[in-house]
Amino acid sequence: MKILVVNGPNLKRLGTREPAIYGFDTLPEIMRKMSAYAAEKGVVVETFQSDVEGELVAVLGKAFASYDGIIINPAAYTHTSVAVRDAISACGLPAIEVHLSNTHKREPFRLESLTVSVCVGQVMGFGGYGYILALDGLLRHIETMKKESPR
Amino acid sequence: MKILVVNGPNLKRLGTREPAIYGFDTLPEIMRKMSAYAAEKGVVVETFQSDVEGELVAVLGKAFASYDGIIINPAAYTHTSVAVRDAISACGLPAIEVHLSNTHKREPFRLESLTVSVCVGQVMGFGGYGYILALDGLLRHIETMKKESPR
Amino acid sequence: MKILVVNGPNLKRLGTREPAIYGFDTLPEIMRKMSAYAAEKGVVVETFQSDVEGELVAVLGKAFASYDGIIINPAAYTHTSVAVRDAISACGLPAIEVHLSNTHKREPFRLESLTVSVCVGQVMGFGGYGYILALDGLLRHIETMKKESPR
Amino acid sequence: MKILVVNGPNLKRLGTREPAIYGFDTLPEIMRKMSAYAAEKGVVVETFQSDVEGELVAVLGKAFASYDGIIINPAAYTHTSVAVRDAISACGLPAIEVHLSNTHKREPFRLESLTVSVCVGQVMGFGGYGYILALDGLLRHIETMKKESPR
Amino acid sequence: MKILVVNGPNLKRLGTREPAIYGFDTLPEIMRKMSAYAAEKGVVVETFQSDVEGELVAVLGKAFASYDGIIINPAAYTHTSVAVRDAISACGLPAIEVHLSNTHKREPFRLESLTVSVCVGQVMGFGGYGYILALDGLLRHIETMKKESPR
Amino acid sequence: MKILVVNGPNLKRLGTREPAIYGFDTLPEIMRKMSAYAAEKGVVVETFQSDVEGELVAVLGKAFASYDGIIINPAAYTHTSVAVRDAISACGLPAIEVHLSNTHKREPFRLESLTVSVCVGQVMGFGGYGYILALDGLLRHIETMKKESPR
Amino acid sequence: MKILVVNGPNLKRLGTREPAIYGFDTLPEIMRKMSAYAAEKGVVVETFQSDVEGELVAVLGKAFASYDGIIINPAAYTHTSVAVRDAISACGLPAIEVHLSNTHKREPFRLESLTVSVCVGQVMGFGGYGYILALDGLLRHIETMKKESPR
Amino acid sequence: MKILVVNGPNLKRLGTREPAIYGFDTLPEIMRKMSAYAAEKGVVVETFQSDVEGELVAVLGKAFASYDGIIINPAAYTHTSVAVRDAISACGLPAIEVHLSNTHKREPFRLESLTVSVCVGQVMGFGGYGYILALDGLLRHIETMKKESPR
Amino acid sequence: MKILVVNGPNLKRLGTREPAIYGFDTLPEIMRKMSAYAAEKGVVVETFQSDVEGELVAVLGKAFASYDGIIINPAAYTHTSVAVRDAISACGLPAIEVHLSNTHKREPFRLESLTVSVCVGQVMGFGGYGYILALDGLLRHIETMKKESPR
Amino acid sequence: MKILVVNGPNLKRLGTREPAIYGFDTLPEIMRKMSAYAAEKGVVVETFQSDVEGELVAVLGKAFASYDGIIINPAAYTHTSVAVRDAISACGLPAIEVHLSNTHKREPFRLESLTVSVCVGQVMGFGGYGYILALDGLLRHIETMKKESPR
Amino acid sequence: MKILVVNGPNLKRLGTREPAIYGFDTLPEIMRKMSAYAAEKGVVVETFQSDVEGELVAVLGKAFASYDGIIINPAAYTHTSVAVRDAISACGLPAIEVHLSNTHKREPFRLESLTVSVCVGQVMGFGGYGYILALDGLLRHIETMKKESPR
Amino acid sequence: MKILVVNGPNLKRLGTREPAIYGFDTLPEIMRKMSAYAAEKGVVVETFQSDVEGELVAVLGKAFASYDGIIINPAAYTHTSVAVRDAISACGLPAIEVHLSNTHKREPFRLESLTVSVCVGQVMGFGGYGYILALDGLLRHIETMKKESPR
Repeated sequence: MKILVVNGPNLKRLGTREPAIYGFDTLPEIMRKMSAYAAEKGVVVETFQSDVEGELVAVLGKAFASYDGIIINPAAYTHTSVAVRDAISACGLPAIEVHLSNTHKREPFRLESLTVSVCVGQVMGFGGYGYILALDGLLRHIETMKKESPR
Repeated sequence: MKILVVNGPNLKRLGTREPAIYGFDTLPEIMRKMSAYAAEKGVVVETFQSDVEGELVAVLGKAFASYDGIIINPAAYTHTSVAVRDAISACGLPAIEVHLSNTHKREPFRLESLTVSVCVGQVMGFGGYGYILALDGLLRHIETMKKESPR
Repeated sequence: MKILVVNGPNLKRLGTREPAIYGFDTLPEIMRKMSAYAAEKGVVVETFQSDVEGELVAVLGKAFASYDGIIINPAAYTHTSVAVRDAISACGLPAIEVHLSNTHKREPFRLESLTVSVCVGQVMGFGGYGYILALDGLLRHIETMKKESPR
Repeated sequence: MKILVVNGPNLKRLGTREPAIYGFDTLPEIMRKMSAYAAEKGVVVETFQSDVEGELVAVLGKAFASYDGIIINPAAYTHTSVAVRDAISACGLPAIEVHLSNTHKREPFRLESLTVSVCVGQVMGFGGYGYILALDGLLRHIETMKKESPR
Repeated sequence: MKILVVNGPNLKRLGTREPAIYGFDTLPEIMRKMSAYAAEKGVVVETFQSDVEGELVAVLGKAFASYDGIIINPAAYTHTSVAVRDAISACGLPAIEVHLSNTHKREPFRLESLTVSVCVGQVMGFGGYGYILALDGLLRHIETMKKESPR
Repeated sequence: MKILVVNGPNLKRLGTREPAIYGFDTLPEIMRKMSAYAAEKGVVVETFQSDVEGELVAVLGKAFASYDGIIINPAAYTHTSVAVRDAISACGLPAIEVHLSNTHKREPFRLESLTVSVCVGQVMGFGGYGYILALDGLLRHIETMKKESPR
Repeated sequence: MKILVVNGPNLKRLGTREPAIYGFDTLPEIMRKMSAYAAEKGVVVETFQSDVEGELVAVLGKAFASYDGIIINPAAYTHTSVAVRDAISACGLPAIEVHLSNTHKREPFRLESLTVSVCVGQVMGFGGYGYILALDGLLRHIETMKKESPR
Repeated sequence: MKILVVNGPNLKRLGTREPAIYGFDTLPEIMRKMSAYAAEKGVVVETFQSDVEGELVAVLGKAFASYDGIIINPAAYTHTSVAVRDAISACGLPAIEVHLSNTHKREPFRLESLTVSVCVGQVMGFGGYGYILALDGLLRHIETMKKESPR
Repeated sequence: MKILVVNGPNLKRLGTREPAIYGFDTLPEIMRKMSAYAAEKGVVVETFQSDVEGELVAVLGKAFASYDGIIINPAAYTHTSVAVRDAISACGLPAIEVHLSNTHKREPFRLESLTVSVCVGQVMGFGGYGYILALDGLLRHIETMKKESPR
Repeated sequence: MKILVVNGPNLKRLGTREPAIYGFDTLPEIMRKMSAYAAEKGVVVETFQSDVEGELVAVLGKAFASYDGIIINPAAYTHTSVAVRDAISACGLPAIEVHLSNTHKREPFRLESLTVSVCVGQVMGFGGYGYILALDGLLRHIETMKKESPR
Repeated sequence: MKILVVNGPNLKRLGTREPAIYGFDTLPEIMRKMSAYAAEKGVVVETFQSDVEGELVAVLGKAFASYDGIIINPAAYTHTSVAVRDAISACGLPAIEVHLSNTHKREPFRLESLTVSVCVGQVMGFGGYGYILALDGLLRHIETMKKESPR
Repeated sequence: MKILVVNGPNLKRLGTREPAIYGFDTLPEIMRKMSAYAAEKGVVVETFQSDVEGELVAVLGKAFASYDGIIINPAAYTHTSVAVRDAISACGLPAIEVHLSNTHKREPFRLESLTVSVCVGQVMGFGGYGYILALDGLLRHIETMKKESPR
């Protein structure tokens, strides 16, 4: 089983700036912990980060052949990108949306998510640990889908 | 550690009606699996369900003295109840909001959540398994809070 | 054939207060006339009234096994209750929405009905006689459904 | 007693197109059944159909002298015609609005009715049978009005 | 003279939680001070609190025969309950709306009051002392009404 | 000089129905008084009334060759007809919009006028006398235009 | 008969600035022509102009005792002043609203008029000549009122 | 193959008025060029124009038996007519919407099209040549449909 | 202790015009009763009325040095004046907003108050007596503030 | 004559994913057919695709010197990109907007096009064939422009 | 060269109240520094402050003859005054809008500026120093305009 | 002191296209003049331009270590980019937003700025000279900040 984790704009700076909102962990640390957790379950995790909307689109566009599922934190593009939404919808893989903070506690323009309605589910407000919850949820979802359509 | 799980209106009928949206598990089955999972971690789970908004308010109003955290699926009241919101906010315990389905795939009036912005985080779209993810997330949150303010 | 008639908040006071809007008949009188009319057609009518949203939800939640159809006047909850809507939708029985007054002649917040779109149809503006029209319509609907899927 | 039944645009094609929404009966059949039903009660029904908004206005404008009440299915003009609304309001006769389908289950622009607030009441969702319910409701309304102001 | 004071959801917890918003007095203390103040004026005060919307509706529905006026703090139901509004409107007694905090300083969804437009007036922002101001205002209103229609 | 006066739907019934809003004069009387007034000034007035939106459009579409200006009371089509607006705009003649009543004192949907912004000006609230004011204003406008571009 | 003409902010600059919108006549010229026209009919016209909202309010507040009617061009305050609206409404005299330009051809914020719904009628788009039309309309209105309630 | 071309209000005046927006060609010229183009492809084109909304509805209502597809320029009715929309939807033929001008460059009320979502596609901004593009597109669409469901 | 009472536009005419809304008392009478009531409590009341928004702003701008609190009835400026709001906010004194009528029973544009959210509280619907309630509330507030920060 | 065809995000995946919406042709096939069609007319077509908004902007920014017109399918950026709009507007070449599907049949956020109002026209709903219609329309437009300003 | 600086309501209190938002400088100090800076460049600055909207209007109305440009801080009237907007637009001089604070960081009703779109440009967020930046910008603008239309 | 100047999409084409809106200077010329001006004050300016939203984000993400402040003209991304907003907010440096044109004079979608509320201030409408004003404002801001927190 192989999972692609896609991280959107500004997440590269995690842990060094605005820790009151996003926590003290850097993105590499969060990704490393998650990969270790996945490895214990025999799952391979590959990660991708870009600040460029179109690069996220491109990576999702090529994901179908190589992965079993997607975990995505579209960050700011959650609220503005129809392109990322279309890419998730078109990629044909189950996807889970993750947010580090509870976006409903912030500015009104963060209330709308263009991407969540093409994902299986959403986990938000648990900081970096949310990726591990999302992974558990995604694996369980893939497993359930297989049982229902075993072929 | 003791956690209160609060379930809102119509959830009593889970598993028998509209399984396409909510799955085939009944609420007692979901609660039992969750309690078993919690017990392995040495956590006691108590559950409460009511179709009556004011009874949810009342139970949350008395929760502070007896529990360490709340997992709540306010169901339909998510979108209409300022009273449940005020009760969560006033109860002084960390709360996680759970939804069985991905509410963003449904009617527009399910897009707004009055309760999520007074919760720590939200888990949705994973069916009954979402309660277990919420529990993991809640325990991790309580643990983190204790480290930060150890007294 | 057995029909459940569900009446929402404030309807207990019918006939004594604000007759200019709702008429002079009390709810028991309206229900009695309706039951007599139904009895002539060999139909049993059972009625339920509550001011408590959650009790309406609970009664609808248990209706499937005992009734062939629902007539509901959700009164004020028409405009505010996602929970009653979910209960009607989940109960699996054909439902008709009744209003004594023509709600479109009143305050703007009475224009929206959260419940009508999960009902078969709606009758409004005929005072207590509207229940009898709703019954006729419901019986005709059940009959038509049976012809189409006779099993 | 003489009742005018007014049918709006596209209703001429009933029964042949989009039966999933509107049923298999043609308008002449529905009108014939209704007239027969009325005749049993000693009531004369006259019917008028036009696709032209202004012709509906004109017919309503001349109705006062010849009829005791109106049953109207403004179809698409329900949502767009201030002129038909003004004509109903000005004609001085009690009117009942009928819709074959439950308009609240369809597109958002069918939620608003410009005409219903100048009618006595509304019946919708019962297919062609709704005209008979509307007739019963209208007759009952006229009778009640007569009792209250017998002159 | 007999006045009914109706308190809505979450007010039972007053004084112990979120004192920054609502003050340190408990509801019993506020009610006791108010009753003492009323007693000096020869006025009997009876109080009722419930977290359940429908129980507030029921109490208002029976108030007409036993009281001369209503003081009501609908709390969260101020913003969501058409049922409580209808109950105040139908009860036929003059009512004053009280809020402990100035609701206009809080979340946007607290700006709208469904209930205030069926009340005589409103007092807000004075903490528990607002009930005493409301009582003074209500008594003055009843007195003025009596003078105008002395029968 | 020759002026076309165009009257929209329901105006044929003027003077007999809803005089509280529209006054007691019939449309022929109002038109006759106006023509007499115009005749004194050596101006010929021709009038047209239709309940059919498209007939108003057609008459305006042929007006350019035969008239020097338009006075139009689009009645209900004021608020709903882009077609009448386009016809006024395309006809190339100066037009004045007249309303018998002050539309801003009535329902909210009468606040918007699709037609007024392609007219020179508007006169409303003066009953039938408004046509005479409109005529005076139109003649003055035509005269002023001629002075400015005398050719 | 004595009429008060009230002119709002910026009208003092008429005729010298932005003639493309407002014409070449100065306010004194327009007022003089209007007074001459009124004098021929035996009507006295008094005029008042101020850029200060509160001074318009004050003048309207004292108008009742001295005048038979009001002609008002509230200019910019048309769209922003509840105070001028309340003053017109409270002054108890029939008022006509005048605008030099057709405000519907300009910025969207000029579409709303807070004042027109407390006036008898409105005349707009005829430049300075609009005051004379308004005077004719106002006199006719006063005359009609006198006939209806001759005392 | 036989195609019906339906043209809405005001299009009769094309080529003579407002050429800056709509071009210098008259409607008969545009229709003639289009028919000639169609004839070369062995396709018969019949055309219909009316200013009356209901006549467009009537013609569409009878189209199914006689044509293979529809090209429609609803002109002003694009933005206001639910009746034309319902007629297109009910007629059961593939339809293409044409606009001479790019409606998105004009007034805001021309942004919404009630009819386009029941059409196969839309062509706009190409003047009279747009009908030829629409014909090409419609023929290609019919051909593709036939290949997919050859029966 | 010295309190400034500020009254906004049109209040000078109180008692003589529109008594159905505002009562029969004149402003001087209301102010005199209030001052007498205050004098009994050893409190000096000074009053100011202006129809001019900027004069209200100026008086509030100089209030800090001379008064202990403000009672303000901004009348029409409640709904339109950011300047008065800024002046209350900047003056640094506790302020109470008073309205004679219940503004929520009137036009929709009276629902919004720009000023109330910079005041301590609000009293409305009690006619002239509301000033006395506001005074009691203000004195209690000042007293409480002193206890909490006695310096 | 040389035309630039610009394709936006996700179009690279055409023909392999979601064929129900977008058809079975791949983008290279569609572009090849279009180029062949253009070549017959002696027109050179160059194509560019990018998932990156800024790269579309950059290509449009350099287009003026090398091309005679633009055909653009901005895909998801149609609804979100002011930058692409500005680039089309600034490039100074006539542009045609193409959409494979009829965007008005899809999610509400696809109703708004930021780009169409800076294009000459739009073609949508014809699948890959729409590019050929757009090319015909663009060539006709360029030809017409040349005739009007031959220099 | 002579510049008029116009300051709106509440600015007289600058430096003494709410320094966290507006800074510690008083308006006279800010004006003095600005005049000194202007004097170095040979520019005369005259300043005017009023809390009264209409006085700002009046001063702007007389500015054309005496000044070369305007710097205006309309303060609260920025968001509410069509009259000040009209006065700036009518005065015929280039104007720069200044705000001490960044209004976009404050309440939502401060987002809209009625005045900025009739100004050349805007400077905000630099405290009192913003006037000097505005002066530099205004002088540069006047200079550029002179070069372009040297007469 | 070192300042980073960031320029967004389409600005590379400045001076060659649409000079009526943006002026005749090219971006390199504007940047060169600004750098020269800065050099006189001993300030180093580095500039960056990209059409790609994510590259602006990346550059801002690395700015903290190397610069003392930011001047940013996000161009089209001002209105659409939450990502650029988050990057400015996260970079921890004072930023000034610059626009060449007065965006409030253009399309409605240019009224909203997502970025300005995380900047210190804004300068707009002064063409290329606005960068120099922004630099002066930024330097003054940095200087003031240093004085207030000198460490």
